[in-house]
Amino acid sequence: MSKKHTDVNTLGEFGLIEHLTDTFKTHQQSSTFLGVGDDAALIERDDKHYTVISTDMMVEGIHFDLMYSPLKHLGYKAVVTNLSDIYAMNAKPEQITVSIAISSKYSVEALSELYTGIKTACEFYGVDLIGGDTTSSPKGMALSVTAIGVVEKGKESLRSGAKMDDIVCVTGDLGAAYLGLQLLEREKQLYLSQPETQPDLEEATYLIERQLKPEANKAAYEYFEKTKLVPTSMIDVSDGLASELFHIAKSSKVGIIIEESKVPLHPDTQEMALKFNIDPITCALNGGEDYELLFTVNPKDLEKVRYMPDVFIIGDIVEEANGVKLFSTGGKLHPMKAQGWNHFEAEK
Amino acid sequence: MSKKHTDVNTLGEFGLIEHLTDTFKTHQQSSTFLGVGDDAALIERDDKHYTVISTDMMVEGIHFDLMYSPLKHLGYKAVVTNLSDIYAMNAKPEQITVSIAISSKYSVEALSELYTGIKTACEFYGVDLIGGDTTSSPKGMALSVTAIGVVEKGKESLRSGAKMDDIVCVTGDLGAAYLGLQLLEREKQLYLSQPETQPDLEEATYLIERQLKPEANKAAYEYFEKTKLVPTSMIDVSDGLASELFHIAKSSKVGIIIEESKVPLHPDTQEMALKFNIDPITCALNGGEDYELLFTVNPKDLEKVRYMPDVFIIGDIVEEANGVKLFSTGGKLHPMKAQGWNHFEAEK
Repeated sequence: MSKKHTDVNTLGEFGLIEHLTDTFKTHQQSSTFLGVGDDAALIERDDKHYTVISTDMMVEGIHFDLMYSPLKHLGYKAVVTNLSDIYAMNAKPEQITVSIAISSKYSVEALSELYTGIKTACEFYGVDLIGGDTTSSPKGMALSVTAIGVVEKGKESLRSGAKMDDIVCVTGDLGAAYLGLQLLEREKQLYLSQPETQPDLEEATYLIERQLKPEANKAAYEYFEKTKLVPTSMIDVSDGLASELFHIAKSSKVGIIIEESKVPLHPDTQEMALKFNIDPITCALNGGEDYELLFTVNPKDLEKVRYMPDVFIIGDIVEEANGVKLFSTGGKLHPMKAQGWNHFEAEK
Repeated sequence: MSKKHTDVNTLGEFGLIEHLTDTFKTHQQSSTFLGVGDDAALIERDDKHYTVISTDMMVEGIHFDLMYSPLKHLGYKAVVTNLSDIYAMNAKPEQITVSIAISSKYSVEALSELYTGIKTACEFYGVDLIGGDTTSSPKGMALSVTAIGVVEKGKESLRSGAKMDDIVCVTGDLGAAYLGLQLLEREKQLYLSQPETQPDLEEATYLIERQLKPEANKAAYEYFEKTKLVPTSMIDVSDGLASELFHIAKSSKVGIIIEESKVPLHPDTQEMALKFNIDPITCALNGGEDYELLFTVNPKDLEKVRYMPDVFIIGDIVEEANGVKLFSTGGKLHPMKAQGWNHFEAEK
């Protein structure tokens, strides 16, 4: 009797999650308000608030490489990427738990470095470490962080709330983290083939910092709070702009048109992309790990967005039938492609 | 310049967690009520309730071996062990998140098996799967589950609440899961050396089921609820009775005396322990993975405990200076030893 063996890559990450969870009962508990399928889940808290929960797993050799990721940065990044998911709900992160599996190659000193990074992030973002698990692993390291936050009812920004004519915005430049990773990978290969070579990364500080030490956009959350601006939809850019646009389009049942010339690119990103012989816009669309917030607002809130620091208006919500398209600098409309699981693999 | 390399095993699991987290600020958020150091953390929910959060990580080759753990059972167990931590706070679990890292050897069909186990547990315990993460891993599988529950303020049972003269109870027999593991390991070795041998595990159904498909003690939680009995302290038996007793003793600043003759052992446990040439009480004290609840009650609640099904009174809370001791069947008081990280390793 032969068993069927379907490769997980045939479904893609998001298809796989849907396939695995679509027969689950979803509201056995009345306190469950929003489950699988957004940046975070929402649970009833009190009459006026939801508790917001998000979780992520990072694995050595997949999400990080200790040849170029200092452990302190890794700890910081593991926290930040989860807080970013909480901010993406227009919520305030308050607590985290950290579970870690480590092989015997890690010393107490190495773990202390990692936890120093976790602590620095906790203090910077004002969140409490409230629990976790520490266990051994046969090989390498896996880190799982859960972040817990709170949002006032009615202020939550889901992926599903974008409406016709809404304005599409992003909180910062895109594509830099992806190029930072390419640079670090290139230097690693060079070092492995010629160990006497000294890495030459001085000109690439910005790109490498965006990869190794990203920040979650607390300032944007605070601006929304202060100006009472509630984005109609929001998501954080972890898998690349294209992928996130497709999430909003699908959840909101809308189409989106993005203007290529409006997509923010740092000068270092533009320069380095050309050195790597990649179109800079491709880094923004398919790169990932930027941890900027992509959000939509009702046109009546345009003034509030205009006064928001470091925000870029990049496109419009249109009818669903239009799909997700890029209005290129050449004046043409190109359909975008969704990316997901293993999209870095595909480009190698 | 040589860097210091201290082996993590020198600190033990609990010492390591303390070492890594003791400089963290603990109450940056006023909503944090109880952080690191109990079965679960407590967060303010509303005037009358706390949200309860617990998280655990399971790693292939450390916590499970797919040679004898069916994936369906593994999914079930990953959920159950986390719900057990919620019940151990005298709280009701309501939601879980599941993060999973998998290597390419796992097919969609294999993952469906795993999620069928997760779903079965969710339905049996009435909890909703509300989120998670699915990612790849260079080798093997890691599973991280976070469970979220709720408890009425004043009904939470912490490790720190045991008082002088309280009665020590446990909800079921101990040591079986440990022997189930020994049996499965023995059969695995036999199979590896003589693949034509058929496993002979029929007589050991109970022990193996306790290892592969444990349950969280929902019935005990419901009995406490119905009878308004609030244990003064509680913990679930995941690392062995001795280890859990030390947690309660340390957190509550008390001593504990356990009567060896009262520690519940299943007849199959007694029989198999002798075949393995192990004192059956050692399996109960140091085995682990029983997922029974160990709790203490005020003597005024003795009647309620007497009518509780499947509960065993095994000892008393005494003054701290007494330490944690076992009153042996031979009539002597023996100091117990705390166990923790890698305690199975030490016995090999």
